Amino acid sequence: MSLDEKATKPHDRLAQALTEDMAAVNALIRDRMASEHAPRIPEITQHLVEAGGKRLRPMLTLAAARLCGYAGPYHVHLAATVEFIHTATLLHDDVVDESQQRRGRPTANLLWDNKSSVLVGDYLFARSFQLMTETDNMRVLSILSNASAVIAEGEVLQLTAAQDLRTDEKIYLKVIRGKTAALFSAATEVGGVIAGAHENAVRALFDYGDALGIAFQMVDDLLDYGSASDVIGKNVGDDFRERKLTLPVIKAVAKADAEERAFWSRVIEKGDQREGDLEHALELMRKHGTLEATRLEALAWANKAKASLHALPAHELRDMLSDLAEYVVARLN
Amino acid sequence: MSLDEKATKPHDRLAQALTEDMAAVNALIRDRMASEHAPRIPEITQHLVEAGGKRLRPMLTLAAARLCGYAGPYHVHLAATVEFIHTATLLHDDVVDESQQRRGRPTANLLWDNKSSVLVGDYLFARSFQLMTETDNMRVLSILSNASAVIAEGEVLQLTAAQDLRTDEKIYLKVIRGKTAALFSAATEVGGVIAGAHENAVRALFDYGDALGIAFQMVDDLLDYGSASDVIGKNVGDDFRERKLTLPVIKAVAKADAEERAFWSRVIEKGDQREGDLEHALELMRKHGTLEATRLEALAWANKAKASLHALPAHELRDMLSDLAEYVVARLN
Repeated sequence: MSLDEKATKPHDRLAQALTEDMAAVNALIRDRMASEHAPRIPEITQHLVEAGGKRLRPMLTLAAARLCGYAGPYHVHLAATVEFIHTATLLHDDVVDESQQRRGRPTANLLWDNKSSVLVGDYLFARSFQLMTETDNMRVLSILSNASAVIAEGEVLQLTAAQDLRTDEKIYLKVIRGKTAALFSAATEVGGVIAGAHENAVRALFDYGDALGIAFQMVDDLLDYGSASDVIGKNVGDDFRERKLTLPVIKAVAKADAEERAFWSRVIEKGDQREGDLEHALELMRKHGTLEATRLEALAWANKAKASLHALPAHELRDMLSDLAEYVVARLN
Repeated sequence: MSLDEKATKPHDRLAQALTEDMAAVNALIRDRMASEHAPRIPEITQHLVEAGGKRLRPMLTLAAARLCGYAGPYHVHLAATVEFIHTATLLHDDVVDESQQRRGRPTANLLWDNKSSVLVGDYLFARSFQLMTETDNMRVLSILSNASAVIAEGEVLQLTAAQDLRTDEKIYLKVIRGKTAALFSAATEVGGVIAGAHENAVRALFDYGDALGIAFQMVDDLLDYGSASDVIGKNVGDDFRERKLTLPVIKAVAKADAEERAFWSRVIEKGDQREGDLEHALELMRKHGTLEATRLEALAWANKAKASLHALPAHELRDMLSDLAEYVVARLN
């Protein structure tokens, strides 16, 4: 790796290597989020799309297909499909979480209303299914429809697990597999499938996406407790205020003495949160080393992701995916 | 038609003729609405499903497939798919409309919360796509994913057209094609497609579903102004209170003098509704004969639905579909 390559983030290098493909994906997304009859739809989708997410998921699909030697056109459809599913879930998440900010901008539910967010999310889901049917490949349809069901199931599970101190690490893993890793692993898997890759390679791509998604979400949950200061568009303590049981809290609850348990019960179960409670929660997490323990777990998943890549052919994109897995956790430092 | 046949509603006769198929559909629905990880999901879906909708849409699919001579198993999957899409849209509609009652029972958003309704709706959408992929038939996938997009688009259009007196009959037709007719026509069309019916028959089935859905929704919109007293689970005036521009109102606005226009502007555009306004609205609709004009339009669509059936083979199910189209409007009397 040259000094120059080291200087750029792996995500940016992926974007550079996939410039043409990503341009095609963006053009397809713009084309399909239009609506002849209901101008409210492009208004809202543009608001979200132009806020400029990192487009990480579609890049995973493109990279997976390309490194398996795909030369057809449908990886672009699949990448756009994955981004549509992601955008639809963001719209619905913001309604469910009553969020005010997304990617540093006011959310659609705030700028328009919850109704529009629900219905435009539905529209994007439907559009994603239209897009994937165009690939004429039943296996990718099956993978992506399964992933959609797992995502929704994970979100419902998260809803019922919130505010419940009995939520353990096993339930947490199910929740984040659903809400995040399912789409990551579907994104990489369909890239391999559309390329007609060997079953071993398809499996490796699934494993990579799954482990990367888990590491990514664990780090996201850490960042919610402010482990890095340069992250834009994130409000520290959101999960705490929403009484979500994420890994650092679950680990702290498991190690709590009677007094600490009473604290967690008051702020998470009863939702009685007062001035200084977030700071006290952070103190308890530091005392029991749960932020660091969470970081180490994320690191283990990132390493698992990297190891999965060995089953894939040598390729510059494979190396970038490896660097990406490393970076996902390294961005904490 | 024997006296006995005349005595039963066409819907009940369809249910009787399709008893075995419907039992298979109900079993499949029960099986697929389960969730290993998130018990909230079957709680909510059971609440809806056990409230016992008429299962009209899945019966349309079954009838279409059977009358085209289908002998395979997949019409059952498609019928369940159609019911899942319908149930998902009901869950999201009730959130969007802030409804309190559905099928004479409290809505899920009231019993649980909006969050659960949004996410469980998403789960049912995803499940519906899983179900349809099992048929391994790309054309039905394409029809049903297109229908889902048209449904969502129609709902968004309805949202933006509400409270806007410029909404005309053309926009109204687009809205109800989206919110109702699109799923009716997809339900009948996929029945023909899965049966491998001739293109003329497939087209006839689409036309039947489209016209039936339009007639059905026009009658529904009439019933919202209380044209029949024996309809259970409907609150008279809901559309008026939600400031929806349905056909009887659109026609009344078109014929309004200056004073009447000021009234419509106040209650629909400004949302300033007072005691006696619903009664006054009804008076204006009666004065301009718009309730009767709407009924006549619904009747014309029902007749169009019946006429479409001529292209299909003679079959007792075809006759029941014809009677059904007639009954949809006759239930107003």
